[in-house]
Amino acid sequence: MTEVEAKKPQESLQERLAQVVELLQRHRLVEDLTHRQEGHHQDRVENLVHRQNLVELQRKLDELHSADIAHILEALPLEDRLTVWQLVKADRDGDILLEVSDAVRETLLADMDDHEILAAAREMDADELADLAQELPRDVVHELMESLDAQQRERVRSALSYGEDQVGALMDFEMVTIREDVSLEVVLRYLRRLKELPGHTDKLFVVDYDGVLAGVLPVKRLLVNDPDKQVAEVMANDPVSFHPDEDAYDAAQAFERYDLISAPVVDRNGKLIGRLTIDEMVDLIREESEAEVLNMAGLREEEDIFASVWKSVRNRWAWLAINLVTAFVASRVIGLFEGSIEKLVALAALMPIVAGIGGNSGNQTITMIVRAMALDQMGTGNTRRLVRKELGVSLINGLVWGGVIGLVAWLLYGSWSLGVVMTAAMTLNLLLAALMGVLIPMTLVRLGRDPALGSSVMITAVTDSGGFFIFLGLASLFLT
Amino acid sequence: MTEVEAKKPQESLQERLAQVVELLQRHRLVEDLTHRQEGHHQDRVENLVHRQNLVELQRKLDELHSADIAHILEALPLEDRLTVWQLVKADRDGDILLEVSDAVRETLLADMDDHEILAAAREMDADELADLAQELPRDVVHELMESLDAQQRERVRSALSYGEDQVGALMDFEMVTIREDVSLEVVLRYLRRLKELPGHTDKLFVVDYDGVLAGVLPVKRLLVNDPDKQVAEVMANDPVSFHPDEDAYDAAQAFERYDLISAPVVDRNGKLIGRLTIDEMVDLIREESEAEVLNMAGLREEEDIFASVWKSVRNRWAWLAINLVTAFVASRVIGLFEGSIEKLVALAALMPIVAGIGGNSGNQTITMIVRAMALDQMGTGNTRRLVRKELGVSLINGLVWGGVIGLVAWLLYGSWSLGVVMTAAMTLNLLLAALMGVLIPMTLVRLGRDPALGSSVMITAVTDSGGFFIFLGLASLFLT
Repeated sequence: MTEVEAKKPQESLQERLAQVVELLQRHRLVEDLTHRQEGHHQDRVENLVHRQNLVELQRKLDELHSADIAHILEALPLEDRLTVWQLVKADRDGDILLEVSDAVRETLLADMDDHEILAAAREMDADELADLAQELPRDVVHELMESLDAQQRERVRSALSYGEDQVGALMDFEMVTIREDVSLEVVLRYLRRLKELPGHTDKLFVVDYDGVLAGVLPVKRLLVNDPDKQVAEVMANDPVSFHPDEDAYDAAQAFERYDLISAPVVDRNGKLIGRLTIDEMVDLIREESEAEVLNMAGLREEEDIFASVWKSVRNRWAWLAINLVTAFVASRVIGLFEGSIEKLVALAALMPIVAGIGGNSGNQTITMIVRAMALDQMGTGNTRRLVRKELGVSLINGLVWGGVIGLVAWLLYGSWSLGVVMTAAMTLNLLLAALMGVLIPMTLVRLGRDPALGSSVMITAVTDSGGFFIFLGLASLFLT
Repeated sequence: MTEVEAKKPQESLQERLAQVVELLQRHRLVEDLTHRQEGHHQDRVENLVHRQNLVELQRKLDELHSADIAHILEALPLEDRLTVWQLVKADRDGDILLEVSDAVRETLLADMDDHEILAAAREMDADELADLAQELPRDVVHELMESLDAQQRERVRSALSYGEDQVGALMDFEMVTIREDVSLEVVLRYLRRLKELPGHTDKLFVVDYDGVLAGVLPVKRLLVNDPDKQVAEVMANDPVSFHPDEDAYDAAQAFERYDLISAPVVDRNGKLIGRLTIDEMVDLIREESEAEVLNMAGLREEEDIFASVWKSVRNRWAWLAINLVTAFVASRVIGLFEGSIEKLVALAALMPIVAGIGGNSGNQTITMIVRAMALDQMGTGNTRRLVRKELGVSLINGLVWGGVIGLVAWLLYGSWSLGVVMTAAMTLNLLLAALMGVLIPMTLVRLGRDPALGSSVMITAVTDSGGFFIFLGLASLFLT
């Protein structure tokens, strides 16, 4: 899809969203009135107002960049979203479909017939088609593939053959290749003949006659060097390049580290097969961070904020169920000590403090560790050192805060031994939280899982059951 | 600072880190041996091995890109970090200081004398100097400013006058400006005379004689158009531009939406004063997402994973203290019902289940809402709809999971009325969690605070105290 230059979005996103929402509200108001009069004589004036509102809304939408329309669609409840979607000019459907989140895209596609989908898809590049293909009805994909030329079809197939998290699935095929034995003057003339360059062209790819990458010619060098020089003299020989089966997130981190804008993708033989660009990498960085936040809270996937109640329930039930089991285990731990609680009911009131602070502290540790892992700072034998540090932090926190709360317990219940048990239990539970806060994400990674996945639920499970057991156990031994 | 082309980092970051760590370990081993023999006759062979190790380490470091060295420094404990830092060639100090996180930068600067800092800073551009200036000793900054020419000093001052979260603090001053009444041929010749273009030059800025921005000339257009054309014919008239006092994160989101690589910054009169580039924006997007994760867990700021125990304690104590207060409140709520618990000790075992599931569910809701806010999807009257949806999800979860746990409670304690109270309390607490999960972040935003800030601690406080109160209250009314 050709790039559209963004035009002066001097109003903020919020303002633009507010304007569209206002127009939609007016529209709905009139529609409600019209509906109420059904069967009666339809009022022409109202009909006119109705149409005028829609025209105004359409004009507003036409002014907006596709990315902004995508944003507005995300922020609207389903009904309004579809009203806006129907008003958007058909030739922008493709652009917008590529911009919205998966959850919203699904609702938009459900509203389109095969014919409309095909029309939107026909404008897309091979890599964009591949992105979309998984979500399209089978026969639409089939028809689409038929309509492509052999090279395009091959590209779509190739992109589809890689996993979502591999470089191959994110690369595009729009790039300018040149030979190394020509002068910059020739390159400049060649570019002029192209009429248009692909988006994010900050370098040209230098290949030999077999298509093997020999280097890259940064546009900057093309511009500042003498046109009589040969490409080979000016090009960079050892560019950062990627393989299609590499992890896409690693590539994104490399883009970030080396401030890249585009980079070549080569196969095992060094043959140039595609290109990665910073825009895809930025999206990936954003998505990864979001996934981390969501995973820690035990949300399975991105959830459109206006998803139906039923969809949300499905998204969230899994971790709630796990939490139910862990909460039940904690409850059974308490059950073991019912005798002690009957004798000293203060234990029931104090035990959630021990568990709660442990949970909070454990969550702090696990958040730190998950973050360090995401940034590739973990591994190579620094585990023990980390555990030691976290244990140190917990020991201090346990003695200080456990001391405070032990004192309060003493004053409140008039038993210094209860206070001591409280302080000891807090300290031990914080140490447990620190240990597990390091070990849970490390174990998840060793099992090949995402370290953030439900880590918050798991650490809380440990600090709850552990906290109850430690506190009630100590109390049973020394107090009752 | 001039851009260095990244060279073939075909080993992964993990591998490179492992190699450096191994060399460091060998180094430390020999050093330990040497130390143990102090006072005795120093063994020349060991001294030689020692030096050889360091030479090898230095060679390894020289091969690495500054960004990679920065990464390795982040992943090393303090002692090793400083060993590596001393081996890094002085002329790369500046680059590396700009790449590392604030926490690590502080440790590196502490290890440098004023002279070294000045040498490193002298290579930097004005915007980079401004970044660093806040963390440098006062007299070093003074000396540094003295050494700059008037224009540079003015630029540093200007950058320092903006808040960290404003566009003005992130813009740089390295850009190519041209006039609109010249031909592309003239522009091409002008560029050749410059010898080098600033990094991320994807467009040239077209200004009039007063320095007012008239448009931008994308390099792509410069390359494909006839050199005889005038700049005015080819340039884009309405480019996305920013003001220095705009919110930097809004700018980053605009870069992401419109796939920008660079964009002009203009003052109130439209005069071009600087430029934003995608690399700064990517860093910002990354930092914002991280801050969100950390804030939700109640961590005050980025914490270097090898920060001292004492520093970590300071970073974490604030939210732990708040948590202590909220846990104490929850404990007092239980205290209100000690009479009921004495009569029916099963209540003590069951009450954490109600509180725990409520906390988990509330965290899911609040995570969703904070995320939607970060993406600017909230506001303009969709609150009520959201609350309704979240209440719906909670009602279903409460009835289903509350029903399950009620059934289990019945079977376990042989009292159907206890089961019913359990189910009712779970449902009510989940409804409370949903309501507060939406209202807490919205209130924080209305108060001008970060919606993620400690949201997890706060929602847990509500669902704990609320859960205990609802469950024990219902039980007191109907069971005892």
